[in-house]
Amino acid sequence: MTNPITKKAKIAKTSSRKLASLSTEIKNRALVSIVEEIEKNTDKIISQNKIDIKKTTGKNLSSALIDRLMLNEKRIKEMAKSVLDIAELPDPVGEIISEWNSPSGFLIKKTRVPLGVIAIIYESRPNVTVDSTALCLKSGNAVILRGGSESINSNRILVEIISGALKSIKGMPEGVVQFIDTPDRLSIYEIIKLDNFIDLVIPRGGEKMIRQIREKSVVPVLSHGKGLCHTYIDKSADIDMAIKIAFNAKVQRPGVCNAMETLLVHKDIADKILPALAEDYKKANVELRGCPKTLKILTDIKKAKKEDWSTEYLDLILSVKIVDSIDRAIEHINEYGSGHTDSIITEDKKSAEKFLTEVDSSAVFHNASTRLHDGGVFGLGSEIGISTQKLHARGTMGLKELTTTKYVVYGTGEIRI
Amino acid sequence: MTNPITKKAKIAKTSSRKLASLSTEIKNRALVSIVEEIEKNTDKIISQNKIDIKKTTGKNLSSALIDRLMLNEKRIKEMAKSVLDIAELPDPVGEIISEWNSPSGFLIKKTRVPLGVIAIIYESRPNVTVDSTALCLKSGNAVILRGGSESINSNRILVEIISGALKSIKGMPEGVVQFIDTPDRLSIYEIIKLDNFIDLVIPRGGEKMIRQIREKSVVPVLSHGKGLCHTYIDKSADIDMAIKIAFNAKVQRPGVCNAMETLLVHKDIADKILPALAEDYKKANVELRGCPKTLKILTDIKKAKKEDWSTEYLDLILSVKIVDSIDRAIEHINEYGSGHTDSIITEDKKSAEKFLTEVDSSAVFHNASTRLHDGGVFGLGSEIGISTQKLHARGTMGLKELTTTKYVVYGTGEIRI
Repeated sequence: MTNPITKKAKIAKTSSRKLASLSTEIKNRALVSIVEEIEKNTDKIISQNKIDIKKTTGKNLSSALIDRLMLNEKRIKEMAKSVLDIAELPDPVGEIISEWNSPSGFLIKKTRVPLGVIAIIYESRPNVTVDSTALCLKSGNAVILRGGSESINSNRILVEIISGALKSIKGMPEGVVQFIDTPDRLSIYEIIKLDNFIDLVIPRGGEKMIRQIREKSVVPVLSHGKGLCHTYIDKSADIDMAIKIAFNAKVQRPGVCNAMETLLVHKDIADKILPALAEDYKKANVELRGCPKTLKILTDIKKAKKEDWSTEYLDLILSVKIVDSIDRAIEHINEYGSGHTDSIITEDKKSAEKFLTEVDSSAVFHNASTRLHDGGVFGLGSEIGISTQKLHARGTMGLKELTTTKYVVYGTGEIRI
Repeated sequence: MTNPITKKAKIAKTSSRKLASLSTEIKNRALVSIVEEIEKNTDKIISQNKIDIKKTTGKNLSSALIDRLMLNEKRIKEMAKSVLDIAELPDPVGEIISEWNSPSGFLIKKTRVPLGVIAIIYESRPNVTVDSTALCLKSGNAVILRGGSESINSNRILVEIISGALKSIKGMPEGVVQFIDTPDRLSIYEIIKLDNFIDLVIPRGGEKMIRQIREKSVVPVLSHGKGLCHTYIDKSADIDMAIKIAFNAKVQRPGVCNAMETLLVHKDIADKILPALAEDYKKANVELRGCPKTLKILTDIKKAKKEDWSTEYLDLILSVKIVDSIDRAIEHINEYGSGHTDSIITEDKKSAEKFLTEVDSSAVFHNASTRLHDGGVFGLGSEIGISTQKLHARGTMGLKELTTTKYVVYGTGEIRI
């Protein structure tokens, strides 16, 4: 007897073949229908969500987790809105990336096609059920959803609503959304070995879960990377601009991947900039941890330990280091950074170009806050996450990253001689 | 004490940072210098190669392996020529893939950059030492070479010559070519866990070696895929064209990945096409293995077993199946194929479009031989192999596939609000 997860993956694979050639119009109609059904069923969703919330009592779960799990009318509206946003994005499928004639004359088109089946493994946030489905469908992929056990009732009702909406759409193949209703650890291990049926696994959640899936999966993995981002204030920086950017990069939203974790300052500008900046940070309750040279300027802060340079705080903590040159700054970033987002503040164009070229990160910024590395801010639409890997997708990932390519060749009887 | 392979990988990483921003001109000058030094040292190379050849006697190695190992004047000339061809290819590094202003106004460039360090793990062919180095250097990557033990002396002299050539080039950083001179199995396992220093592993060799590396490597792997290619002759095919293409796809060079392994024929055209085609195959010594329906038309051929449909013969053997419809043909290909290259022969444009859309392979052909799936034939220049994976690179891989991208952002003090 086939295991139920394998069976679902097989169904997804079969349906993905039909989904791959569906028109943008039908896909968008399906997304709009999902939006309508979600809005229509707001009460039902809230009542199922309440069951999940109730079950968390006495389980010693963090209040942050319970907050992520909780749905209310406003959040359901936002959830629906995000599907509408995805419907409005351009369809990546069918794009002709390039088109040319071979030296011997036949026509070649390199086209963009869906990957096939994408499995999403996530934790307690039920909105991931909805926006992952929308992203996969829009990019022509069938989806297998495996959410956390805490949100099982919320996820189940959402998938029911989505499936109902899809059934009403003429031309939409059956089985494009598969839901794993046994959200135990075992289900993850089963999913990540099904490389015959699943083309991509996207883990969305904590770093530990992502790392485990990366290490064990036979199916290729695409994931959001750790963000150990730096801002380097060069000796020729505009001081006001540098203070404004360094403050924003740390404080505006410290808990996210593109927030700054380490500030590097050129020795020639350190005493002009650090006292004022430290004042601002103090008001915002930022804890500073400095290198020995920094401690000579900011005498009342903690000393940074070796492990501080490689710690992603995701909190109001910042390590500060004074460097002798731009070369030392670049070396520090390439050694301790996570290849996510790093910024230089300078008025010297040559230094800027050097930094932008030599820092080996998915995004490098000149005179701007690392917090701006974001699909929406870049104008690319809804973001799946930011990749720090170098293969397939690097930096902010959108719909295109859920596709692959295919060479389509039009011959007139050509053979190899 | 650091292990010598880790040490070499570290040196490669450091040198790759400088190599990444080297001009096309310097890189090409280095390649030309390699060509000159190889030609100048032909005798030295041959004498070292003779040592390798001599050591094979009594070792029970296949004559094919010894042939791949052997170098002579003609082969050394070809080896040098391939480096010159790579020098003439456009440099992928520095390409601005797209450039736009964010909604809030700052400038974003998506640029093409080298991966960093590439490790090549290969078997007995010494020319791989030379062309892998050329491909990596041209695409701005440092390279770690780990060839087979049989070709150790040939590889060592080639690396010596290459290193000498690179030393003479002003601006070329030291250490961009690293050679592993302990070509045991252990060295492979050491390489594939060094994800801190190595960005990509390319195994070039037999299927078994590739699979093992794929399964065990922590470093991302890019490899040539298995080729179980099909030709489907539709009911409305031009019979002469179909015979010509089906013959070419099997016979022109049966030992390579893009040769056809299974022929699918629509039932309505089978008795018009199979007898003549079988005649041609017979003259070329092709062994046919047919499905029950095929056996009714071709009464003197072997019966195909279940495993024939999933066997990559790489030989003058062909399995033949008669199908009831184009849908059955597509299903068969998606079930048994390896996602490499599949072709439809038909005069019916609608059937062609259906096949090209629904067959899930890296390249799909209409009225052309699968043997044409090749970087050179496509006009893309030197090919590293053909990928059957869906992430990062699919189909024929060239220099571009040895690069990644980087977002470069030019701000004027922008922060996130």
